[in-house]
Amino acid sequence: MVGMSRLCTVRIGSSTRAGRIDGDDIVILDAADVGDVLRADSEVAETGEAIPRETARLAPVVTAPDKVVCVGVNYLDHIEEMGRDRPSAPTYFAKFANSLIGATDDLVLPPIDVSTHIDWEVELAIVIGSPVRHASPSEALAAVAGYTVMNDGSVRDYQRRTTQFLAGKMFEGLSPLGPVLVGVDELGDGSGLEIRSEVDGVVKQQSSTSELCFNVVDIVQDLSAITTLMPGDVIATGTPGGVGAARTPPEWLTDGAVLRCSIEGVGATENRCVLP
Amino acid sequence: MVGMSRLCTVRIGSSTRAGRIDGDDIVILDAADVGDVLRADSEVAETGEAIPRETARLAPVVTAPDKVVCVGVNYLDHIEEMGRDRPSAPTYFAKFANSLIGATDDLVLPPIDVSTHIDWEVELAIVIGSPVRHASPSEALAAVAGYTVMNDGSVRDYQRRTTQFLAGKMFEGLSPLGPVLVGVDELGDGSGLEIRSEVDGVVKQQSSTSELCFNVVDIVQDLSAITTLMPGDVIATGTPGGVGAARTPPEWLTDGAVLRCSIEGVGATENRCVLP
Repeated sequence: MVGMSRLCTVRIGSSTRAGRIDGDDIVILDAADVGDVLRADSEVAETGEAIPRETARLAPVVTAPDKVVCVGVNYLDHIEEMGRDRPSAPTYFAKFANSLIGATDDLVLPPIDVSTHIDWEVELAIVIGSPVRHASPSEALAAVAGYTVMNDGSVRDYQRRTTQFLAGKMFEGLSPLGPVLVGVDELGDGSGLEIRSEVDGVVKQQSSTSELCFNVVDIVQDLSAITTLMPGDVIATGTPGGVGAARTPPEWLTDGAVLRCSIEGVGATENRCVLP
Repeated sequence: MVGMSRLCTVRIGSSTRAGRIDGDDIVILDAADVGDVLRADSEVAETGEAIPRETARLAPVVTAPDKVVCVGVNYLDHIEEMGRDRPSAPTYFAKFANSLIGATDDLVLPPIDVSTHIDWEVELAIVIGSPVRHASPSEALAAVAGYTVMNDGSVRDYQRRTTQFLAGKMFEGLSPLGPVLVGVDELGDGSGLEIRSEVDGVVKQQSSTSELCFNVVDIVQDLSAITTLMPGDVIATGTPGGVGAARTPPEWLTDGAVLRCSIEGVGATENRCVLP
């Protein structure tokens, strides 16, 4: 992996390139995405190109992670609003790579005859930087490259039609991941950061990553007993209270709504919802 | 995709190659695995090499699927033994690529301080052959390349520690996938096939794929409303009664045990369990 603090993935033509944030510019790197940068054995070279950050079209920070693992019921306030007990172990479910979109892409809702129960969940996402198995706490943190923002896009009627969440969590294109990867050199263990979602400028979720039941080290250590985590793997750490499904009456994302998900020190995704 | 009925993936040195079954031989193809054959725009060429089937080291039929989706509680006899109600929708959970091993690889158990509750689940696995979204029943079957055998390796204490199965299902290296992909030209919709697991020669599960609550067409059609299924995606269709966890007393896979999973018309995986 490369010794750079802030990385992103940009769309160039019909493909993608990794980039390094340099003030208002993105310096283009010789790698297809941040996942490839993290998997590289040595420092990835710059191509000599740069593009203004303002006009860049961002792809998901990692375009094709080997694994996308999400932690459920992991903020105390969200556990309360969903009527669940405090957990004794982390709850995991999955997404796949095609669930992910860029930080400013249109968020294309499912056709309304499939579902209209589309909900938001802002999350601190861990990006793994080096392979790790059976980690101690210090090995767990050493394996983390850094953090980004994910909206864990959730289709609540599909999520709840059986005991298993996956059907409502693996929907294509509902989960922005970005805008940038910020390294552990800046953010340490990811605690103490304000986390917030807004719909059309109205704050819906607001908490701190210090409210996590299972923190970054706990999660990486626990998962590493199950499988080898690999560079580019993405782990979304759970969402605080304020989701649409828990409101009275319930609120859903609809055509034209703008969803903004932000984490202090990382940045924000901002996606306009559109019907297909 | 290629117009061949029976394909496999073999290990050659430290990499893999797709192969076409030709009697007692495997004719090596110019593709890294069966997933690459299915993703190719035109027929994949033969390399001119062939190896005896008897000595071939098989890799997972698809080594790095974009998605591995598993269906739970989908055989009536298994639903009964697990004490569940007949479902109104398919129950989905995930695995990741590194859960998969070859049809005759050693099945490396987790260290005993992680878990000893390792269970078997023989399943008919669908392999997708062409991209499909919002499929009709006929489009669903047309998108299926064929079928193979999967053991949905399950770590029961991890599976049951929260509401979500994933922790017990995504363990590394517990899920053989193979030995070959048999096309829909031979097996149609995959119904009417005897499905069986044996541990050390003793039959543990024995049923018919006609006992599926949600059949191959139902599952592909339903998943295609959620996401685009892609060539090489693997969907395991669920397991019949007779798993270790439902026995009195419960039975688990232990060091030295040989697990054989077979489906009529497809073949068998046979893996020796070993401690790390």
